[in-house]
Amino acid sequence: MASIAFRPGTVDDLSLILQFIRDLAEYERLSHEVEATEERLQETLFGVRSVAEIIFAEVDGVAVGFTLFFHNYSTFLARPGLYLEDLFVLPEYRGQGVGKALLKELARVALERGCGRFEWSVLDWNEPSIEFYKSQGAVAKDEWTVFRVTGDDLVKLATP
Amino acid sequence: MASIAFRPGTVDDLSLILQFIRDLAEYERLSHEVEATEERLQETLFGVRSVAEIIFAEVDGVAVGFTLFFHNYSTFLARPGLYLEDLFVLPEYRGQGVGKALLKELARVALERGCGRFEWSVLDWNEPSIEFYKSQGAVAKDEWTVFRVTGDDLVKLATP
Repeated sequence: MASIAFRPGTVDDLSLILQFIRDLAEYERLSHEVEATEERLQETLFGVRSVAEIIFAEVDGVAVGFTLFFHNYSTFLARPGLYLEDLFVLPEYRGQGVGKALLKELARVALERGCGRFEWSVLDWNEPSIEFYKSQGAVAKDEWTVFRVTGDDLVKLATP
Repeated sequence: MASIAFRPGTVDDLSLILQFIRDLAEYERLSHEVEATEERLQETLFGVRSVAEIIFAEVDGVAVGFTLFFHNYSTFLARPGLYLEDLFVLPEYRGQGVGKALLKELARVALERGCGRFEWSVLDWNEPSIEFYKSQGAVAKDEWTVFRVTGDDLVKLATP
């Protein structure tokens, strides 16, 4: 396994973060959905009301993977949780344990911050990932479905 | 419909918040899972690293419903989202539109804060709620499943 180092993303990494987001979108064939810009990343990740954080995985000083996460909350536990929104490793650096190392690093951050849970979402057809996550102790919240309101429906719902 | 007012929960509401959490847990028959205390709520909701917020619904100056929410994040949009973790209305005040009013209030907060999404999770067997949410423009993210690591498995995952 390559020697992997971690570092948090900062406001100096805006172009690198945007590149990773575009690489991820291209990999998922969802490039047309990317509305992110450096300006908006600066505002939402490093502004006054920032809610998400970045950690890069580096090999020989080069960022080869990234993860974006934020904190959710358990009412019953009265503790934050850590939610992994995205994790991406450059194709040419796959198979070297970078993704697993990032996952383990986030678990470490979760414990360090007193989180009761570490969570992420997986597409139901992604069997290889699901098997891997289960092997790491993850449990599927099979009985829950997330509902989402966006766009005009959100405006309508917000109208009294 | 009753005249409903909204106000944010503050550090002066700790006992009220804990009571709502206990009422919610009792309703879900999950009282044994409640580890929340006033002290921990103070630390995690109103401390330096607070990640979640409360809004109360009041009728005639009395808190009859509450919702706890936090911000998640869309990488592609580079925008925060708003995630509703819990919503509860006292049994004696149901059927008066308090729950729907809280849902609409959160949609308003989401727009006010520039969120691209408003999301929450629903148990798959809860057909009446699912139909109601769909009628409000919510779309089920059916193809995604949340995976969760907790307890000893989280400690193990965090170990290099």
